[in-house]
Amino acid sequence: MEDTLQRFFLEIAYDGTAYHGWQVQENAISVQQKLHEALQKILRYPVETIGAGRTDTGVHAKQLFVHLDILADSIKDKARFLHSLNALLPHDIAVYRILPVDQGAHARFDATERAYEYHVHFCKNPFLLHKSWQLREIPDVAIMNNAAAFLVGTQDFGCFSKSHTQVYTNICSVLQAYWQETDEGLVFHITANRFLRNMVRAIVGTLLDIGLKKKAPESILDIIGSKDRSKAGTSVPAHGLYLTKVVYPYIDKAF
Amino acid sequence: MEDTLQRFFLEIAYDGTAYHGWQVQENAISVQQKLHEALQKILRYPVETIGAGRTDTGVHAKQLFVHLDILADSIKDKARFLHSLNALLPHDIAVYRILPVDQGAHARFDATERAYEYHVHFCKNPFLLHKSWQLREIPDVAIMNNAAAFLVGTQDFGCFSKSHTQVYTNICSVLQAYWQETDEGLVFHITANRFLRNMVRAIVGTLLDIGLKKKAPESILDIIGSKDRSKAGTSVPAHGLYLTKVVYPYIDKAF
Repeated sequence: MEDTLQRFFLEIAYDGTAYHGWQVQENAISVQQKLHEALQKILRYPVETIGAGRTDTGVHAKQLFVHLDILADSIKDKARFLHSLNALLPHDIAVYRILPVDQGAHARFDATERAYEYHVHFCKNPFLLHKSWQLREIPDVAIMNNAAAFLVGTQDFGCFSKSHTQVYTNICSVLQAYWQETDEGLVFHITANRFLRNMVRAIVGTLLDIGLKKKAPESILDIIGSKDRSKAGTSVPAHGLYLTKVVYPYIDKAF
Repeated sequence: MEDTLQRFFLEIAYDGTAYHGWQVQENAISVQQKLHEALQKILRYPVETIGAGRTDTGVHAKQLFVHLDILADSIKDKARFLHSLNALLPHDIAVYRILPVDQGAHARFDATERAYEYHVHFCKNPFLLHKSWQLREIPDVAIMNNAAAFLVGTQDFGCFSKSHTQVYTNICSVLQAYWQETDEGLVFHITANRFLRNMVRAIVGTLLDIGLKKKAPESILDIIGSKDRSKAGTSVPAHGLYLTKVVYPYIDKAF
């Protein structure tokens, strides 16, 4: 029984500044590649991981789960394994937990909810480089929140999706969408069962247009109704975006 | 009257990671040098600045004031001047305000109060690289705060000063000194009329020794009484340290 494979979830976080996104790809350094390299150094055999989703170049993750199958024998002491893995990973990638799961558990397909934040600020801030997008003008938060309320619900969000993506449907259920004022600027929070490619950045660009009076607040309904990407606002830059939560029925939410 | 010199204060902030401290020096890049270069590009004549104090290599400042004399004619529109200056400065240095002051005003000698923060965290955190010091063990905050209370008051703090510095006295008046728990770890806050070289980092090292039970809480009194640097704890690393406030009787505290 020594070489039985056991499935585990890893809970990871990363500053995406230095990476071409999560996913392994040719000719570009990804977070997943760094994770595979560190895992292979510890385990001494190659492993594959499946993440809850992709993040684009420069996007950050405060919480992402990945699954992987490793020999049950490989991990005798989880705390020690995490310590070694974190020591081998670069400073901008951390692994918080390793959790044994059922063999059929899937980091992408089993996720029931995902949450993102988008950070903006207004004054030049030396501590927010690559961590928040600096805007010149201050948008009207109340107007943006009125418009954001129309996002909540189960709808076709094709208008906010990168064109030519191969997904079976553009229908998503948005559970929450609102802007919050912070000491440093504004944070947009959005939670949904699933997201389309580029969706959060296109939504933020559209809401900022509304907050800066470039679009009328009601226009959000026409934009959603159009299912036409060209009707929505431009995508905001990647470096303000954070994947913050991925929820599974069988994983404890608490950190 | 066109070439009358007018004294101004600049309120600046910087991420100190890339710099050999605030002060201009030979063969090393300082924040002050970058500021002088940007000022000269706008003003087209060289200017000298005097800062409220030095910060060491890697130390950050959320608020530092500097004074400088410039031709009154040079600044017709302050907002525009700030915008140009920030555009010329690197991303990790910002200027928030430019304030006309009396000709005798002095950024170093007139400061009546200074405040620092020291940030520590415990779990590997990809977003705190160069911004907080990672500790392996969690110290007892209540014990550290009991010890920190003994710092408050007007005392000789020679035990926490880098040796061989040329200051007329080691007496400082500490107004506040306490640890605060945050989402990410702990922050030590200390406010005083003045600080000796290396003082905050030596105090933090000593308090952490106490919080980790390597020193008895009461030992802080013996350490202060000894006036001997070798009795205190080792200095903690620079990258967790932030100068956060400099107070002048004539400058509005509000941001």
